[in-house]
Amino acid sequence: MKFKAEIDVMPLKELLDPQGKAVGIGLSNIGLNAINNVRIGKHISVEIDANDKAEAESKIKNACDKLLANPVMEYYTFSINPA
Amino acid sequence: MKFKAEIDVMPLKELLDPQGKAVGIGLSNIGLNAINNVRIGKHISVEIDANDKAEAESKIKNACDKLLANPVMEYYTFSINPA
Repeated sequence: MKFKAEIDVMPLKELLDPQGKAVGIGLSNIGLNAINNVRIGKHISVEIDANDKAEAESKIKNACDKLLANPVMEYYTFSINPA
Repeated sequence: MKFKAEIDVMPLKELLDPQGKAVGIGLSNIGLNAINNVRIGKHISVEIDANDKAEAESKIKNACDKLLANPVMEYYTFSINPA
């Protein structure tokens, strides 16, 4: 069975996010100063072959822990749906 | 009123995504070959001051069109919720 996972990898809330800071300043420079607290991370969409949703979940967790996220600086969240 | 927006900026489906390709190969190298069709984009979370959800939406759309996404190579989706 095929599943589709949407993974977000974001900088930890405790850490400064210089990229987000820069984009926040860029936004106020073009007049959009109602937007603040910008944080920028990665969005990863993948397809998984798995027998059921639990198996797909454990595979994605494994992939995030081993390769997709750096736990020292980032945390991840994901959602899985049938493709 | 404060809203929180979660924006995804992804490479257009018609385009090759070399970063996603590389991560897909990396995943099979560590034994996770059930995961494929990897595509990598940006995830941006922001806070917006707006009177209502419609105003917040138009501000985010504006920000995406003007700064956050490059329409030649990327598309965006977003969701807005009260903070």
